Amino acid sequence: MIVVKIGGAEGIGPQLACEDIARLIHAGERVVVVHGGSHDTNTLAERLGVPPRFITSPSGHTSRYTDARAMEIFEMACRRLNARIVRTLRALGVDALGLSGVDGGLWKARRKPAVRAVDNGVTTIIRDDHSGTVERVDADLLHALLGAGKTPVLCPPAIGHEHEPLNVDADRAAAITAGAMRAHTLVILSNVPGLLRAFPDEATLIPSLARVELDSAIELAQGRMKRKVIAAGEALDAGVHRVVLADARREHPIERALAGQGTVLA
Amino acid sequence: MIVVKIGGAEGIGPQLACEDIARLIHAGERVVVVHGGSHDTNTLAERLGVPPRFITSPSGHTSRYTDARAMEIFEMACRRLNARIVRTLRALGVDALGLSGVDGGLWKARRKPAVRAVDNGVTTIIRDDHSGTVERVDADLLHALLGAGKTPVLCPPAIGHEHEPLNVDADRAAAITAGAMRAHTLVILSNVPGLLRAFPDEATLIPSLARVELDSAIELAQGRMKRKVIAAGEALDAGVHRVVLADARREHPIERALAGQGTVLA
Repeated sequence: MIVVKIGGAEGIGPQLACEDIARLIHAGERVVVVHGGSHDTNTLAERLGVPPRFITSPSGHTSRYTDARAMEIFEMACRRLNARIVRTLRALGVDALGLSGVDGGLWKARRKPAVRAVDNGVTTIIRDDHSGTVERVDADLLHALLGAGKTPVLCPPAIGHEHEPLNVDADRAAAITAGAMRAHTLVILSNVPGLLRAFPDEATLIPSLARVELDSAIELAQGRMKRKVIAAGEALDAGVHRVVLADARREHPIERALAGQGTVLA
Repeated sequence: MIVVKIGGAEGIGPQLACEDIARLIHAGERVVVVHGGSHDTNTLAERLGVPPRFITSPSGHTSRYTDARAMEIFEMACRRLNARIVRTLRALGVDALGLSGVDGGLWKARRKPAVRAVDNGVTTIIRDDHSGTVERVDADLLHALLGAGKTPVLCPPAIGHEHEPLNVDADRAAAITAGAMRAHTLVILSNVPGLLRAFPDEATLIPSLARVELDSAIELAQGRMKRKVIAAGEALDAGVHRVVLADARREHPIERALAGQGTVLA
């Protein structure tokens, strides 16, 4: 069992990753696919005249500000990308089936009750942000679908304790899903070759990292890579044997990742 | 097993129908929910500055013109409504799970290769309309989900022979789904009490119709009711015992329908 988090590859789309996933499935591997929708949400929000907003936390971390209106757009954008990935896989002979974390209560999440935000040096409390963290995965549902020959393609939002949709980080959702499914490998694709010692110099790729080195490695990570390293640690803690942070932009991105190209965490 | 096609009730939303569905499920009934997305597609299309277009056939029948751009909006609107129904049901204690007809190849459809359209008295051939008719339902997938305690909530698009999304009529998709699932009853909700002998006079409701009377009844049906009567006939032909065309606007719309309020076709 492999969990693949598709991401990155703007301008290329999910085609390269889907080709590899199809090859793996035709060779008898079971694969669960996870993706987010950040880039698509920004584009759709602009088209709808509702520009995306972001929150900067006191520690400098930036995340999407998902009020009710932004959630509607986030959900539509995720589902649109989901449908596209499902169709791409189906055209490659994979019996793909898309679900959001809301469907069947697949990803149960805990909502962040209030978020501190810094704007022009002033700290405010934001209470209408619909963001959270996945706490529980319905692995039985995924096993039932895999058993019926389906390849699940999963995306946010997750569902909160009050049945509300929640924006969750797809890398971390992929990590907890990989743990719940007892996947041997989690591949996280993005637009860089892996974790770089000196971002953006791709020659400084860190080829491998042990669990004990992860906390210090988080310091090296820039921007969205920080969450991927956190997700990798969570996957290892949940029993996943190996996490590979790999490059979405090259041919055979998943084959390369499984062959150890990228940053391998174990 | 009951199949419920949710529809109508603009301004009310799916709440009333969902409350009845929850009661049925808690009483041990198995329910498959189907819905379309016509009204929501029009609203979203306007918001995106892509006004919906319609085709009038030589026989005077009007349908949505779904080119690639309109399909993108149709799919997003259907999925947005789907997520809303899933959440409404989940808040009522139903373990609902949404799927489009593309997911898992649930609704395999035949695309209409070309459509004749009449505009200002001139007949043209439209080749980029992505519309079709569901030919095959993956009943095994639905049984697997029901067996896992999930309540499937299904919406267009369906998937074509070339893996393309197709706009299909949700009433007729509900009918073929009810047949494939060997449902005893199909309830089709809309904003009228049923089939009216003299539309829009609700006092002229036809309380029941036999299969042999259906073809002449189609002549009485106005607008979208025509498709519902056609769908009812298709469901009966597929082995469904009873179809009820019923009113979405009243409290307990499905309970009333099952008690015979509306137009009962058997």
